[in-house]
Amino acid sequence: MRALDVIARKRDGQALTTEEIHFFVNEYVRGEIPDYQAAAWLMAVLLRGMDARETTDLTLAMAASGRTLSLGSVAPVVADKHSSGGVGDKTTLVVAPLVAAAGLPVAKMSGRGLGFTGGTIDKLESIPGFDVSLSVDRFVAQVARFGVAISAQTAELAPADGLLYELRNATATVPSIPLIASSIMSKKLAAGAHVIVLDVKVGRGAFMKDLSSARRLAELMVHVGNSAGRRVVALLTNMDQPLGEAVGNTLEVAEAIDTLRGHGPADLREHCLVLAAHMLLLGGLAPDLSAARNLASATLRSGRALAKFREMVKVQGGDPRVADSPWDVLPRAPVVAPVQAPAEGYVAAVDAEAVGLATVRLGAGRERKGEPIDYRVGVVVHRKVGDLVRRGEPLFTVHAADEDSLCRAAEEVLAAYSWSSRPVRRPRLVRAVVCGE
Amino acid sequence: MRALDVIARKRDGQALTTEEIHFFVNEYVRGEIPDYQAAAWLMAVLLRGMDARETTDLTLAMAASGRTLSLGSVAPVVADKHSSGGVGDKTTLVVAPLVAAAGLPVAKMSGRGLGFTGGTIDKLESIPGFDVSLSVDRFVAQVARFGVAISAQTAELAPADGLLYELRNATATVPSIPLIASSIMSKKLAAGAHVIVLDVKVGRGAFMKDLSSARRLAELMVHVGNSAGRRVVALLTNMDQPLGEAVGNTLEVAEAIDTLRGHGPADLREHCLVLAAHMLLLGGLAPDLSAARNLASATLRSGRALAKFREMVKVQGGDPRVADSPWDVLPRAPVVAPVQAPAEGYVAAVDAEAVGLATVRLGAGRERKGEPIDYRVGVVVHRKVGDLVRRGEPLFTVHAADEDSLCRAAEEVLAAYSWSSRPVRRPRLVRAVVCGE
Repeated sequence: MRALDVIARKRDGQALTTEEIHFFVNEYVRGEIPDYQAAAWLMAVLLRGMDARETTDLTLAMAASGRTLSLGSVAPVVADKHSSGGVGDKTTLVVAPLVAAAGLPVAKMSGRGLGFTGGTIDKLESIPGFDVSLSVDRFVAQVARFGVAISAQTAELAPADGLLYELRNATATVPSIPLIASSIMSKKLAAGAHVIVLDVKVGRGAFMKDLSSARRLAELMVHVGNSAGRRVVALLTNMDQPLGEAVGNTLEVAEAIDTLRGHGPADLREHCLVLAAHMLLLGGLAPDLSAARNLASATLRSGRALAKFREMVKVQGGDPRVADSPWDVLPRAPVVAPVQAPAEGYVAAVDAEAVGLATVRLGAGRERKGEPIDYRVGVVVHRKVGDLVRRGEPLFTVHAADEDSLCRAAEEVLAAYSWSSRPVRRPRLVRAVVCGE
Repeated sequence: MRALDVIARKRDGQALTTEEIHFFVNEYVRGEIPDYQAAAWLMAVLLRGMDARETTDLTLAMAASGRTLSLGSVAPVVADKHSSGGVGDKTTLVVAPLVAAAGLPVAKMSGRGLGFTGGTIDKLESIPGFDVSLSVDRFVAQVARFGVAISAQTAELAPADGLLYELRNATATVPSIPLIASSIMSKKLAAGAHVIVLDVKVGRGAFMKDLSSARRLAELMVHVGNSAGRRVVALLTNMDQPLGEAVGNTLEVAEAIDTLRGHGPADLREHCLVLAAHMLLLGGLAPDLSAARNLASATLRSGRALAKFREMVKVQGGDPRVADSPWDVLPRAPVVAPVQAPAEGYVAAVDAEAVGLATVRLGAGRERKGEPIDYRVGVVVHRKVGDLVRRGEPLFTVHAADEDSLCRAAEEVLAAYSWSSRPVRRPRLVRAVVCGE
């Protein structure tokens, strides 16, 4: 088998065989296929597509390229979740301890933020002392003993994904649904969870801007997961405006803790309960979605979710007092100022991508891999789509490193708002649910 | 400007600007754009296409990547020809001295054979002493003094083409009409001729298997040449069966000399006269095609074409006696055997690609760049499409290095023949002519 022939067959729109796909991935990881051949192949895949069977083969080949975890010894059923990335998405910080506290172990590997979206790992790292770089063995042992662990994605799992992602990033071959699906699912499959709930964001603040692409991605990932024997469900959720109110690392940690304490913004709380309910249902902890939802809700109310979060922080080296009084532990931005509404009106839109980019420019995120970030800075949007706002009321608050960046962010976030003189309907949070076979 | 954005725009099916194309070619040649980005871009170009304006820009950028010859000081009008490559195509050996002898200087850079097609440079090199590696200055000086020079393509001209061609070859991005057109025309434009006649082969023994692709390629090349101020015509010519009878280096040289002497196979002679007539017409040496044809014909008959060939061989260091008694000069294969027709019938087809591949396996060509070749070996097909052949008549002759390879070639060439019990029409040589503006 020759790489050249595999490229030519995909170039000509043919479906590749299982053997061809495994050959290509394995030889690329071994360094036998050079970057330039892989780049031509990726562009051919992007433009010619891959069907569900090919995408499954690609995912399995990538998952098998490194270590694969077997969590059967940890518990009969272990759960995982994945978000395709959004602005203000701190759900993992709430959902992982919540589901674990309800009795279903959660083993979650997460990524760092890139571009306008934040990353769970950066958020956790903003808690002083919190260790996000667990070894694979420690990760597994922690799930076994405490029922929950959140760690940074390790290069030991699915190394093919790391290599291919870097190449895609340099060759304009990122926006391909089969390539996105295989990238996400290869890591999930290698990480070993039996139950996987996928949160596919759709809208201005997501990589998927339209519902039909998001649905295709979701269906493909569910198919791939099922083909590998996992129970998978995907939610298509709105990401036109930020989720919750806080955008920025420590600000989001504080809001997640507030939510674990039974408060927090209504949309965030609702989103977390829906995700948790689907995980508990797939995990077999409830007979139907409504019972699962009640279990999640009761676990939150009882304080057990917060206790599990506190325990996880402590086990991973962080200061557990953060769970009780976040702002005694988390670093604060030196310059904080509310921005008032310029006129009366209904909020018609809060452009999530614009808010995300303003936050990146404040220093809360990174434009390139490896750039340092400022955990303290960000934006809290007090008013969201559908709210009626009076002139002079606080619209959002900027947390900045200095006056200059504060002023710039204030202007940018103000420009992210659109207004209407007539009432505006609040957006539906969950737009569709894609169930497996 | 960023390479990534240029790739993304072509990936999305947009036409690239002149600036983007020049940026991409120049930065690639300078090593600033890595192979993997160029590979992704080539695949996007192959699958998304390029319009005539983009192809012209690409060709001009590639032509400008190295030295460009200005032949205005040599003569007011200098001609060049190009064949897209076929089996048994020795026309340059006849046409270049013929046109030069008729009064129009010819400056021709040629390539080596690769795969099932032969190359003019290999054929000339089979003449003992013939120097195909003229420096650019010597090449120009020889055209000025003797009216004709044939030399190997130099890396000094259009180096971008050499780099991109190698990458295309390794990334399955060769079969793209805009990329083929720009590869051919960048070298022609850099070589400086004012008149360019393109011989685009169509059929089983050509890279272009169907007439419509060949026509698109021809039209694109004529457009590009005209845009650069050159007079260009393209002939679409049949390459279903070998051109002439001889396939293999010394065998083709001998057949070309035979043709220059006024003999040779009828189809080869006709093909050469048509090509020469178009060159002479574009060069302004005749008022119309029929007068140009008469001029070419008279030049051939007068012996001046042969004399010019003899002179060229001598000037380039070869043994000029080859022009008078080729087989006293050219090396001969040790094993030569005719193969007889197995039954009576009309020849329906002689698969040019199959004959070409059989000849490569005899050692006359190469499957990879840089492989050595055996100039002596090859095949002479005595009977061609439309001929009525009696059982036992000589069908073709194999010239081989040993008995084993002779037997294998005999079988392969026999299998290249198809038969009919009813008369078969001889194929039309020139299928279409594409004229410029």
